[in-house]
Amino acid sequence: MTQSTLTRSWIASANGHTDFPLQNLPMGVFSLNGSAPRSGVAIGEHIFDLEAALAGGLFEGQAKVAVEASLGGALNAYFALGRSARVALRERLLELLGEGSTLRGKIEAQGAKLLPLAADCQLHLPARIGDYTDFYVGIEHAKNVGKLFRPDNPLLPNYKYVPIGYHGRASTIRASGTEVRRPKGQTLPAGQTEPTFGPCARLDYELELGIWIGQGNDLGDAIAISEAGDHIAGFCLLNDWSARDIQAWEYQPLGPFLSKSFITSISPWVVTAEALEPFRRAQPARPEGDPQPLAYLLDPKDQAGGALDIELEVLLLTESMREQNLPAHRLGLSNSLNMYWTAAQLVAHHSVNGCQLQSGDLFGSGTLSGPDRSQLGSLLEITEGGKHPIELASGEVRKFLEDGDEIILRARCSREGYASIGFGECRGKVVAAR
Amino acid sequence: MTQSTLTRSWIASANGHTDFPLQNLPMGVFSLNGSAPRSGVAIGEHIFDLEAALAGGLFEGQAKVAVEASLGGALNAYFALGRSARVALRERLLELLGEGSTLRGKIEAQGAKLLPLAADCQLHLPARIGDYTDFYVGIEHAKNVGKLFRPDNPLLPNYKYVPIGYHGRASTIRASGTEVRRPKGQTLPAGQTEPTFGPCARLDYELELGIWIGQGNDLGDAIAISEAGDHIAGFCLLNDWSARDIQAWEYQPLGPFLSKSFITSISPWVVTAEALEPFRRAQPARPEGDPQPLAYLLDPKDQAGGALDIELEVLLLTESMREQNLPAHRLGLSNSLNMYWTAAQLVAHHSVNGCQLQSGDLFGSGTLSGPDRSQLGSLLEITEGGKHPIELASGEVRKFLEDGDEIILRARCSREGYASIGFGECRGKVVAAR
Repeated sequence: MTQSTLTRSWIASANGHTDFPLQNLPMGVFSLNGSAPRSGVAIGEHIFDLEAALAGGLFEGQAKVAVEASLGGALNAYFALGRSARVALRERLLELLGEGSTLRGKIEAQGAKLLPLAADCQLHLPARIGDYTDFYVGIEHAKNVGKLFRPDNPLLPNYKYVPIGYHGRASTIRASGTEVRRPKGQTLPAGQTEPTFGPCARLDYELELGIWIGQGNDLGDAIAISEAGDHIAGFCLLNDWSARDIQAWEYQPLGPFLSKSFITSISPWVVTAEALEPFRRAQPARPEGDPQPLAYLLDPKDQAGGALDIELEVLLLTESMREQNLPAHRLGLSNSLNMYWTAAQLVAHHSVNGCQLQSGDLFGSGTLSGPDRSQLGSLLEITEGGKHPIELASGEVRKFLEDGDEIILRARCSREGYASIGFGECRGKVVAAR
Repeated sequence: MTQSTLTRSWIASANGHTDFPLQNLPMGVFSLNGSAPRSGVAIGEHIFDLEAALAGGLFEGQAKVAVEASLGGALNAYFALGRSARVALRERLLELLGEGSTLRGKIEAQGAKLLPLAADCQLHLPARIGDYTDFYVGIEHAKNVGKLFRPDNPLLPNYKYVPIGYHGRASTIRASGTEVRRPKGQTLPAGQTEPTFGPCARLDYELELGIWIGQGNDLGDAIAISEAGDHIAGFCLLNDWSARDIQAWEYQPLGPFLSKSFITSISPWVVTAEALEPFRRAQPARPEGDPQPLAYLLDPKDQAGGALDIELEVLLLTESMREQNLPAHRLGLSNSLNMYWTAAQLVAHHSVNGCQLQSGDLFGSGTLSGPDRSQLGSLLEITEGGKHPIELASGEVRKFLEDGDEIILRARCSREGYASIGFGECRGKVVAAR
C-alpha cells in the first residue's frame, strides 16, 4: 500500500481537501475537555485516539510498542524508538483507516476513538523539548537581512561553509493558538546614545520549518551525515517571534536573546519523513562559485534527495479585518527549498563537536524567504525595516505587528499523482504588553 | 543559632579546614556504588544522606516537606519550594549536625546516614536543567576579549546597560569529573579564505560562577528586581569550555554555538543564599561616568547587598605534572565581585520580556577575570590569544590546553569572625578527539 496510489480512507473528511489525508498521519498530543493529554493521529477532520485504540486491542508487535511509547502526554519515548517503529505504526494505521479496513466496524462502534478535531480537543506541544536550536539556513533571508547592514556584502564569509545556528529558549515554545504577549525591553531610540525601556515597537514574525529530533546521540559521539536523516522524527511549522528593536540593541556580541525568548509558536502535528517521502528533492544546485560542503556535510543520498518541497504560507488577520469579515492577508508564499542546507546536514553539523542531541529536541530552520518580493518570511524584509508599510484591505497599514494582529502559518506539499498533505496551522495573536 | 557564632559540628572533619563546615550545608545528588541517585548534604568529609535521615524520622514540618521534595535524583521540586522551605531545612540540619545535637547518638547509630565523601559516592548533576543561559557580566573579561578585536574601544555601547547573555546548550552540562572530549569542527587557518575540518587546536576553559534558579515564573510575567533574589536556589562553579578556533569562525552573526556546546562542567554542590549571607557586599561602585542601571534593574536592597565576595581559583594539572608529582599550577585567582551585574539583576533582566524561568534552570555568570594579570579566567586572556605561552614547573609550555590537561576550579568565602566556606571542586580532564 504505497502513498502514490492515492489510497482513500473510510473516513470521508480524509478524502476531500484536507491537510490530513490517509497519506499524512501526523502524530500529536491532545486533551479532551481538560482530560490528561494523550497521543493521537490527525485524519481528515478527526483525531484517532491512540490510547483508546490500544485499549481496544488494535495494535500488536512493533506498532504496539510505538503506541505504548507515545502515551503519557509527550512523544519523546516514541521519537526515541526511531524509524522502524514509526514505519510499523504507519503501516498499521494505513490498514486500520484505509478504505478496505476490516476493522472499520469495530472502530466506528467505539466512537470515542475518532474525535472531532474542531470541537473540544485541545492540542499541546507534542514533546518535552530539552533543547531548542534555531538555525539561519534560509539564504534569501540571510541576504535580505545582511543587506540592511552591509548592502555590498550581505553574506558573511562563513555562511556558505557553516550551517549557522544558535541556541534558543526551550521553555517558551508553545503550541499554536497560545497568545503572544508583546514583550518589554531595552531599546535604543534612533539618534540616541542611551536606551529606554518599554513595550517592543517593532514586533515581527519569522516563517520557519521546525525539525523534531528522534533518536539522539551520546555525549562525544558525532552523527554521520549518512545516518543523520534517520535521527529526524518529523517536521512542523515554527514562528520565531522577534522583537526587532530589542534585538538591534542587545545582540552584539553574543547574538539574539530576549528579543526572541518571549515566545516561539509551533504547529502541534508532527509530519513524518515517511509522509514527506514523495516531496523529497535533490539539493538545489549551488550557484556557480559557491563552495562544496565540507566532507562531514556531504552524502550522495542526502544530496540526491535531502531537500524538501513544502509550500509555506504566512497570513495576517487584524482585529479590524475580523470585524469586517475580511479574509486573512497573505504576507508571503515561500518554499522550504530555500534552505541552503538540508535537515540532515543540520543534524550532522550540530553533533559534529560531540554535542548530545536528545529525542524531543527541536530545530528551527531559520526564516525561509524566497528570492521574490511575494516570498518573504518576515515584516523586517517586507517593509525593509519599517521603511515601506504594507496596505491591507481593511484600510490599515502595517510596518510591524500591532496588538490584536494574528499571524497564521500554513504548509502544503503537492505533487502530480500523489495525495496533497498539509501541516495544520500555526497561529498566534498578539496581545498588549502587561 | 547564627552563622557568625562559629558553631561547631560533632562531625570532626567539619571543624577543620574544609569547604563544608556546619555553616555551609550545600545540597547535592549522589549515588553509592551505582545505587539510584539521591539527595544529600555535604558536611566535612561526609555526605549526610537525606533519604536515610527522612526514613529515620529526623524531619518534620517544612523541613520534612523540603527533604521529600529533594528525593528522586534531582532537586528541581526542592528548588521550586523557594526560600522558606530551604531555610527550614537549614535550621533543622544545624540542630541535627551541630555540636549540641541531642540526636547525635541516633545518627551515629545509623551509620549509613553519614557516608564518606571520598569513597564510593558518585556525585551527579543536582537538577534536571531545563534551560541554560550563559551571561557575559565579568567586565574585565569583556574588556580583555574586546581589546583583542577593538584595542581602542573594547566594550560595545550596550555593555553597561544590558546584562549581556545568550542561550547555552543544556544537554551537555556535566558534573565535575566528567572527561572533556576535544571537539572537532570547522576552523579558518590564519591567512586562508577556506576553512578546514579537524580537532580544535585552541581549547580553553572559562572560570564562571553558576546560578541555580529556584522558583520560576509564568510565561508573560516578569520577576521584579526586588523579588529576584528569592528566585535563586543557590550557586556553583562552572567551567564554560571553549574552542577558540571554532568560535572565531562560526560566531558571526548569531553568537557562539558548537565552540561551547561540546561540554560545560559544574561543581555538584548547591551553595545556598543562606550560607553566602555573611559574604554579601554592596555592588562595587560603578566607575565615574558609567550609567545608572535602568529602573527595572535597580533595587536599593540589591545595590546594598547583592554582590558576592567569593574568591575563585583556577588551576592546571598536566599529565607530566601528575607523573612528576608536581602540584597544580595556579592559572588565576579572581573574585565574583568582578561581576558588573548582580545575580538578582540577571534574573530580573532575563524575565523582563516575559521569558519563563523554571526551577533547575542554570545561569553562568560569564568569565570572572579580575583587572590584574594574576586574576585572569581564561587562557585566551593569559596568553593573549596564544601569543605569550605560559611556562609550567614541569618544563612544559601552554598556549592552549593539550590532551591530558586537567582544569580545576575552586571557590572560597572568608570573613573575620565567620566560618570560611568553599564550593567543592569543578574538575575536567581533556581527552583526545575521537
